[in-house]
Amino acid sequence: MPNLQQKVMTIAVDAMGGDNAPREIVRGAVAGLEFLGSEGKVVLIGQADLVEAELAQFEGWAGRVEVVAANQVIGMGEQPVEALRNKPDSSIARMVKLAAEGSVDAMISAGNTGACVAACQMKLRSLKGVARPGIPVIIPSFGGPIALCDVGANVAPKPHHMHQYALMCSIYAQDMFKLTSPARVAILSIGEEDGKGNKLVHEARNLIKSDPRINFVGYLEGRTMLDGLADVIICDGFVGNVVLKLVEGLAAGLVKSLIRKIMEEDPNLAQASKSILGRILAKHDYNAYGGAPLLGVDGICIICHGASNWLAIKNAIAVACGLSKSKLNQRIVQFLATQR
Amino acid sequence: MPNLQQKVMTIAVDAMGGDNAPREIVRGAVAGLEFLGSEGKVVLIGQADLVEAELAQFEGWAGRVEVVAANQVIGMGEQPVEALRNKPDSSIARMVKLAAEGSVDAMISAGNTGACVAACQMKLRSLKGVARPGIPVIIPSFGGPIALCDVGANVAPKPHHMHQYALMCSIYAQDMFKLTSPARVAILSIGEEDGKGNKLVHEARNLIKSDPRINFVGYLEGRTMLDGLADVIICDGFVGNVVLKLVEGLAAGLVKSLIRKIMEEDPNLAQASKSILGRILAKHDYNAYGGAPLLGVDGICIICHGASNWLAIKNAIAVACGLSKSKLNQRIVQFLATQR
Repeated sequence: MPNLQQKVMTIAVDAMGGDNAPREIVRGAVAGLEFLGSEGKVVLIGQADLVEAELAQFEGWAGRVEVVAANQVIGMGEQPVEALRNKPDSSIARMVKLAAEGSVDAMISAGNTGACVAACQMKLRSLKGVARPGIPVIIPSFGGPIALCDVGANVAPKPHHMHQYALMCSIYAQDMFKLTSPARVAILSIGEEDGKGNKLVHEARNLIKSDPRINFVGYLEGRTMLDGLADVIICDGFVGNVVLKLVEGLAAGLVKSLIRKIMEEDPNLAQASKSILGRILAKHDYNAYGGAPLLGVDGICIICHGASNWLAIKNAIAVACGLSKSKLNQRIVQFLATQR
Repeated sequence: MPNLQQKVMTIAVDAMGGDNAPREIVRGAVAGLEFLGSEGKVVLIGQADLVEAELAQFEGWAGRVEVVAANQVIGMGEQPVEALRNKPDSSIARMVKLAAEGSVDAMISAGNTGACVAACQMKLRSLKGVARPGIPVIIPSFGGPIALCDVGANVAPKPHHMHQYALMCSIYAQDMFKLTSPARVAILSIGEEDGKGNKLVHEARNLIKSDPRINFVGYLEGRTMLDGLADVIICDGFVGNVVLKLVEGLAAGLVKSLIRKIMEEDPNLAQASKSILGRILAKHDYNAYGGAPLLGVDGICIICHGASNWLAIKNAIAVACGLSKSKLNQRIVQFLATQR
């Protein structure tokens, strides 16, 4: 049963999800116990023998980590709905079932995002006023962090889904960035003029612009989206996923090619600048962010990067605790219910 | 009349198009004469008094630059079709009319891309076998240059448009990159597995994969699209435009923030690394690329970046000459007619 008194949390972790499962997931889950107070618990879900073998390598978790057996695994490339239908004993299906029953307060997975989203949509209720969940990821920009939503939960959104993302992310960004004024919301497009863009963007803009609850600042294009002109940038899940991964790949690639180039021309200089470059690259390390919530479902589900290491999983536990403590979902429901 | 003997070319340049018009456009057009042999000509189209005042600042163009008056200007933010309807005496409308009449061999504009594309679609024929034109832009990557198509001619393509982009760009990339084997063609998506992506991407993939004329290498995602795994990357014009501008903005922003950071920590080091950083940034300078052809129309139309300076316009003239000499359009038509 979820502890309604708050504080003592039980968090389900998909031990089989992601490129580094189960080793890094188990390690991160044990490390994350530190965020859960002395009574909080982690439930690791996966192939029991594998998970227990990993667990045996750590100490300090006795009585605080439970293993729940799930004998199937949904691969990263599987078609989500089909995989869930064919693998009722998968770690993702079992994890979401525990959350739906109220046996855990939050869940975390670095596995197949589509399957995770689909399972949550099927088994959990939506927040009142929300038609489709979305994933907002916080990315660094040259003017402070930005919440980009959606990054892949919904690759074919309707305009009213984008409108709901704008509403939900207004609250989410206010929380995460500790904003003192309403979050500035932009839509990602291909020019700043109203006529630019595609049909989806135009229709979403009409809904968002005419909603006085949203502090809409207009379109942003690729060139200026990282200039810190908005706190929230709304886009469809296909575009958002391309953008998110491109930012990751380009930042890492540029810093690497820079180090290589400097090394060729001046090895001493390369040595001297390496630590500065390393620190800049660290800003783009997704492991430090922990993961992103699936906004819009009545529960806390943290979606982690497929390449997550133990630190990302540990940080995801902190994120889950934070969202529970701040009562984000309740506040989103209240906000959605306010008069327009 | 177009010179069918080739060599002596007449190139129309939209003197009013772009953020730096007419000054930089006129300067670039005069500088570009060097690519046109001793008999080649440039036709500058725009407000005659303004254009002539700029021209007066240069020498060496007498008898080789003609000014054609166009008294209206289509702004960067105007709705393309409407603007063309309301401004028949605009530089873009006049320029495309000259090309349609055969009075010039190629045309160049840094103005409203949508209006340029729409005017070409209305006034020029399409290449046989092509339903909609697309713009392929060459972007630098960590594994050599890539042609990304489309970057904004068509924000709502059908799957068969994407298929035609793949065919046209196979020839274009072979030319531009001097490939000795067929161009590797990828589709931009949100994962490498077949099931990932949206409906458009799935349907385009089916067409492209089953066409033996195309060397299809699969999906690429944002993270790996700049790793040099393909010569051509196909996407819809909305996504392509976002990606193109994001790459520009992120590369410039990262290098700038690096210089700032190094400056804070170690001014001597900043001085030493500035020239290396400058050279890396230069790789991302769109002015060096000159512009991109509007592929699929029966003519040569080079679309330049709105922020083009004189060098970009000069280089666009070189690009137009190159495409004319290589008979790109004829070769695309031949390729489209080959048996599947």
